[in-house]
Amino acid sequence: MRRCATLLSLLLASLLLLATTPDETPLLTGYSAASSRGEREWEGKFRAIPTQQNLRDYMQRLSARPHHVGSPYDKDNADWIMSRLKEWGLDAHIENFDVLFPTPKVRVVELVEPIRFAAQLQEPALAIDPTSNQQSEQLPTYNAYSIDGDVTAPLVYVNYGIPEDYEQLDRMGISVKGAIVIARYLHSWRGIKPKVAAEHGAIGCIIYSDPSDDGYFQGDVFPQGAWRPRGGVQRGSVMDMPLYPGDPLTPGVGATKDAKRLALKDVKTITRIPVLPISYGDAQPLLLALRGPVAPDGWRGALGQTYHVGPGPAKVHLRVESNWDIKTLNDIIVKIPGSTYPDEWVIRGNHYDAWVNGAEDPISGANALLEEARSLAEMLKQGWRPKRTIIYCLWDGEEPGLLGSTEWAEEHAADLRQHAAAYINTDSNGRGFLSAQGSHTLEKFLNGVTREIQDPEKNLSVARRRQLKQIADAKSDEERQEIRKRADFRISALGSGSDYTVFLDHLGIASMNLGYTGESDGGIYHSIYDDFYWYTHFSDTDFSYGRALAQTVGTTVLRLADADVLPYDFTDLADTIHRYVAELEKLLKDKQEEVRERNQELEEGVFTATADPKQTYVPPPMEEVPPHLNFAPLENARDALTRSAERYEKAFDQATKNGDLALSQATIRSLNAELLQSERKLTSTEGLPGRPWFQHMIYAPGQYTGYGVKTIPGVREAIEQKKWREADDQIVRAAAVLQDEAALIDSAAQTLEKK
Amino acid sequence: MRRCATLLSLLLASLLLLATTPDETPLLTGYSAASSRGEREWEGKFRAIPTQQNLRDYMQRLSARPHHVGSPYDKDNADWIMSRLKEWGLDAHIENFDVLFPTPKVRVVELVEPIRFAAQLQEPALAIDPTSNQQSEQLPTYNAYSIDGDVTAPLVYVNYGIPEDYEQLDRMGISVKGAIVIARYLHSWRGIKPKVAAEHGAIGCIIYSDPSDDGYFQGDVFPQGAWRPRGGVQRGSVMDMPLYPGDPLTPGVGATKDAKRLALKDVKTITRIPVLPISYGDAQPLLLALRGPVAPDGWRGALGQTYHVGPGPAKVHLRVESNWDIKTLNDIIVKIPGSTYPDEWVIRGNHYDAWVNGAEDPISGANALLEEARSLAEMLKQGWRPKRTIIYCLWDGEEPGLLGSTEWAEEHAADLRQHAAAYINTDSNGRGFLSAQGSHTLEKFLNGVTREIQDPEKNLSVARRRQLKQIADAKSDEERQEIRKRADFRISALGSGSDYTVFLDHLGIASMNLGYTGESDGGIYHSIYDDFYWYTHFSDTDFSYGRALAQTVGTTVLRLADADVLPYDFTDLADTIHRYVAELEKLLKDKQEEVRERNQELEEGVFTATADPKQTYVPPPMEEVPPHLNFAPLENARDALTRSAERYEKAFDQATKNGDLALSQATIRSLNAELLQSERKLTSTEGLPGRPWFQHMIYAPGQYTGYGVKTIPGVREAIEQKKWREADDQIVRAAAVLQDEAALIDSAAQTLEKK
Repeated sequence: MRRCATLLSLLLASLLLLATTPDETPLLTGYSAASSRGEREWEGKFRAIPTQQNLRDYMQRLSARPHHVGSPYDKDNADWIMSRLKEWGLDAHIENFDVLFPTPKVRVVELVEPIRFAAQLQEPALAIDPTSNQQSEQLPTYNAYSIDGDVTAPLVYVNYGIPEDYEQLDRMGISVKGAIVIARYLHSWRGIKPKVAAEHGAIGCIIYSDPSDDGYFQGDVFPQGAWRPRGGVQRGSVMDMPLYPGDPLTPGVGATKDAKRLALKDVKTITRIPVLPISYGDAQPLLLALRGPVAPDGWRGALGQTYHVGPGPAKVHLRVESNWDIKTLNDIIVKIPGSTYPDEWVIRGNHYDAWVNGAEDPISGANALLEEARSLAEMLKQGWRPKRTIIYCLWDGEEPGLLGSTEWAEEHAADLRQHAAAYINTDSNGRGFLSAQGSHTLEKFLNGVTREIQDPEKNLSVARRRQLKQIADAKSDEERQEIRKRADFRISALGSGSDYTVFLDHLGIASMNLGYTGESDGGIYHSIYDDFYWYTHFSDTDFSYGRALAQTVGTTVLRLADADVLPYDFTDLADTIHRYVAELEKLLKDKQEEVRERNQELEEGVFTATADPKQTYVPPPMEEVPPHLNFAPLENARDALTRSAERYEKAFDQATKNGDLALSQATIRSLNAELLQSERKLTSTEGLPGRPWFQHMIYAPGQYTGYGVKTIPGVREAIEQKKWREADDQIVRAAAVLQDEAALIDSAAQTLEKK
Repeated sequence: MRRCATLLSLLLASLLLLATTPDETPLLTGYSAASSRGEREWEGKFRAIPTQQNLRDYMQRLSARPHHVGSPYDKDNADWIMSRLKEWGLDAHIENFDVLFPTPKVRVVELVEPIRFAAQLQEPALAIDPTSNQQSEQLPTYNAYSIDGDVTAPLVYVNYGIPEDYEQLDRMGISVKGAIVIARYLHSWRGIKPKVAAEHGAIGCIIYSDPSDDGYFQGDVFPQGAWRPRGGVQRGSVMDMPLYPGDPLTPGVGATKDAKRLALKDVKTITRIPVLPISYGDAQPLLLALRGPVAPDGWRGALGQTYHVGPGPAKVHLRVESNWDIKTLNDIIVKIPGSTYPDEWVIRGNHYDAWVNGAEDPISGANALLEEARSLAEMLKQGWRPKRTIIYCLWDGEEPGLLGSTEWAEEHAADLRQHAAAYINTDSNGRGFLSAQGSHTLEKFLNGVTREIQDPEKNLSVARRRQLKQIADAKSDEERQEIRKRADFRISALGSGSDYTVFLDHLGIASMNLGYTGESDGGIYHSIYDDFYWYTHFSDTDFSYGRALAQTVGTTVLRLADADVLPYDFTDLADTIHRYVAELEKLLKDKQEEVRERNQELEEGVFTATADPKQTYVPPPMEEVPPHLNFAPLENARDALTRSAERYEKAFDQATKNGDLALSQATIRSLNAELLQSERKLTSTEGLPGRPWFQHMIYAPGQYTGYGVKTIPGVREAIEQKKWREADDQIVRAAAVLQDEAALIDSAAQTLEKK
């Protein structure tokens, strides 16, 4: 027994030694040995501060009443937040913007033929859910920025209402010209549905949540389960945000009191046809009244009926009228000045306005932000000072169209272009796995942070849990092996749909969007049921992932703000660009093969021979095979980027001598000044074709996806839209920004090499 | 103008010449020049005889009342058919067999907890459908050969109730031990569902038709559309046919009056647990009463509700009791003696018994058979004589378990083994595309026939339309190119589910199953709504495809019966065997990789790390990686087969000199005698492991698919069931029959080479 005990104590001693030897801990990238040690200590302290109870309390308070833009409780929340920030000792102020925000005046959806039925357009209160009965304060169900209109026409079911669906309608010989379309939510951002419908000649658009995607097909409905009940409706903006987000009247400039404003009639981001969202309860009588062909396989939902396409005999009356008012936004801005590099800014934001009570969206992210702010305030009291300036932002008016963030960033554009090092966004949070999208210059950095955050449910880091999830979900062995072997997990590129948009896409500021998800699915998005009751019964009920989010984002902010050298990495960026270029080449090749094959089938008569003569079928048209494009400029730029990235990495490694960063303050300063511009180099002031507000040449939301990202968007969308000359031009432009980026990285490497 | 006209007339003249010159027409394979010319004439005459009106009249008469085994109208139909055959001048007789055929005495499905609900178990009559109200003659909804039982237990939803579904239940930590399972129809033959349920410890089984697969999700329901209405039920046999089909009491021998019979208690093909089929109307209250986890994604149907798995709280009482009676079958057999090779038989069959009125199943195939018989009778009057003996069969008792065909073929097994050249089956027929499965020795032959049958809807042969459909449906470019380039379209292998089974699988007679399908989908299978009203409103309403079927099968029979040399081809067989061997090798490799990957994921902790702690999840067990198997015997046999097939093809081509077949009568006779045994060589009297009745070593229905074929089944199922030693043994056995086949083909080639 004694001998065993001795061995055991020896073992324990060595384990303790291993765990506590400070020299064993690797340097944080961009940190000197001393600052790395200090940083680790402060980060440890930081992560111990956030409490689940606080997160719960903030949510209960902030979601207690409906708090959409311009509502009393939205202002009340702003005041309450300001009080808390000040109480914690932070330097907070409010910035105001005056924006166009339409609210409902008249809303009608009714079936007028073959039978009459008037849609309720009202979400029922539930006895068990204490905030669901606040009707007098709830914004009615509607789609903001729908044009006013009053139309009556035959109905056509268009599935998700995305471009492919209209191709399918063409094959069935069905036109939506002069019709009202009914589309189900999902597979595109909602604003795309009326846009595409109008492009095809429809005169009205109804959007509903099918229970197959967002209702009982997915799970038990609220309040028995987490999913959308029969009367639940998804509100939301239908502004043409892929053209430009923010206040429709002031594109590109802050919507200050005196800003020059467009006349309403000249605004291009309002829909061309009236739109309203409805529940599946309201949708069912409309869909039941349709005849015409049975909907194709993938078009059928879970309403427990046969889905028909129409047109008619269902005829629908749709009327929408809004109060086209100007409302004042209250953006809450907190500044913690930097001690060493005050002119380098790390920005972190989350909105606090909601469609209704918005417990999940946005309070589950906003409460983490508040708890981070409180923790930073706590650390300031303990003597911590960030090297860089930290700016915490609570955005107003995100829901209608990213209004608060866009107007603020447009107003401060010059400063931001000069000073911003990174923007870190959150929006909603749930339970499960780390979800991370962002600039690939930050991919390696984010990997480092998330390897140190503990998953609240499993004895693992959130990075490792995410990796294991990706292994579980991988579609091929090749993909799995890559996930296993690559040093860093990949982050996806940012599209749109939250407040990072203006920072990344308009200003070229390296951005990230973070959250936890995957074990808290449900169907209360943008409904009155997104409230404290729902969240505390079906999502992150104990706020342990809220705490993990505060820890994750807080550590990210701290580590960015405190680094000696800005910790961007360019090898992961170069690797990602290689993939994008390969994707574009494959996209073109696939299109060529697809057209070639279809043309051959047209010649063989496949379409006419296989069509059922008892059903209308229109074969697709013969098309010209897409030409070959000159990808050489992109290939050269991609290779140049790889060379520069490797050179910078090597130079940086060599600057680390004897476990310390051997760089003078002067070198560090000039290096940081260069690095700060690295994401900006990926933009072009000319912007993307037809949408100059979008200046990032590598990332943008798709013109026909709305949220979904298009990478190297100028080239990708030109190919998708068969604009071959434009594609060739855009290759040259995308290549130019990548060459600029490579030159900047080379210059930074040279700075390091010279020391 | 004049010059153009001259050119045009010249062109027309040459086109006419091309079209009419008889010498340009290629020889039919296996025919001399003279017999080929004569054959084409007779075939042309034959195809002109069938009329759509006759097909309609036969169907109206034969489906006018319910006509299941042992019913008055089944006998009445037999008498009527006999009268017609005799009236046409054919030599027809009836052969009787006495078989076990249970019919319902007691049927109960009721929910006893948490609320009470008694299933109706009755399909409602429809005013518009004149035969749907013949309740007194309808066989109630039931599954024949369910064991008697009376059980009450918690309910578990098991999706399709196939082995993979139980693996999924294992992951959810749910056992069906002591439970009653409810499974939906499809994805296996119905008899597999109670078999697998019993193997997992369930004590009862309910099968229902989910509207997602067979109801309003697919299209409008009867009588507005073709699909299964809320009260429609699929009857059907649940006998363990993959063990042996036919009368359960007389396996392997004809169920004649004096046959030795098993005691009921010793029968192995009756289910181990009671089973009843129900409608989705009856299923819904049961499924609504289930709780437990939400059913996995692919398990959810279209009932317009959340699907839960259970177990319970739904508790169900299931009671089944049958009259275990012996019924007499009336197989109708027509013989047209062969003029030259009377001892070589071409057999053609379709059943005439139904579950209820059975307009589609089986009358839409039986009426074509009758019209073929009438046409042959007509030709006999015109002087045609087949070289081989033709046997037309109208089987009784197919529905309960292929009773009529199996007992007849078992009774005549010795003769059939000696004389049968081919068996051609049909069952149901619809509108659309040629569906063809069968022995690959007949693949090339069938291609030749179907290139001459005109599609009734399109200006194309049915072979070409089928090819174009396959191009349209191809999953990959590789597949598409193969379809375009291969001289013959591929036919799939035969599993089970109709009367070819005993001929192919037990006796080794080259078989085919033909029909038209793809434009006449619906949901009346085995219900009271499969009747004349449904068929003439929603299927081949003008019987044009019925006529095409009579033409297709009639031409097949004629061309087989009249050929000088039996037109088997072995190159397509060899090509197909190559694919099967490659599939087996890939199957093993995939299993190895799957297990290796899963084991690695278990070691990495993927399953535990990614599982939601709020849901029960049981990781899969660690498994041994499947060993490598010795495929060399199969590879050698496969190559030997290719060599022999090519040698035979070359020898046959060389026997065709100056556009004629230069073979003596003696050579032809000895060649035919050899060829007649070619499919028999693919059998082994030992049969497949555990089911000796199945003697074909290349084709068999799967033990866990029921209908779906398993090719080289001994090997394939051993791999699937992880019986590695058995797999090695079965490779040797399958290789042996292929080597025997190669030897026979070599010998036939030698006969040709010697002349």
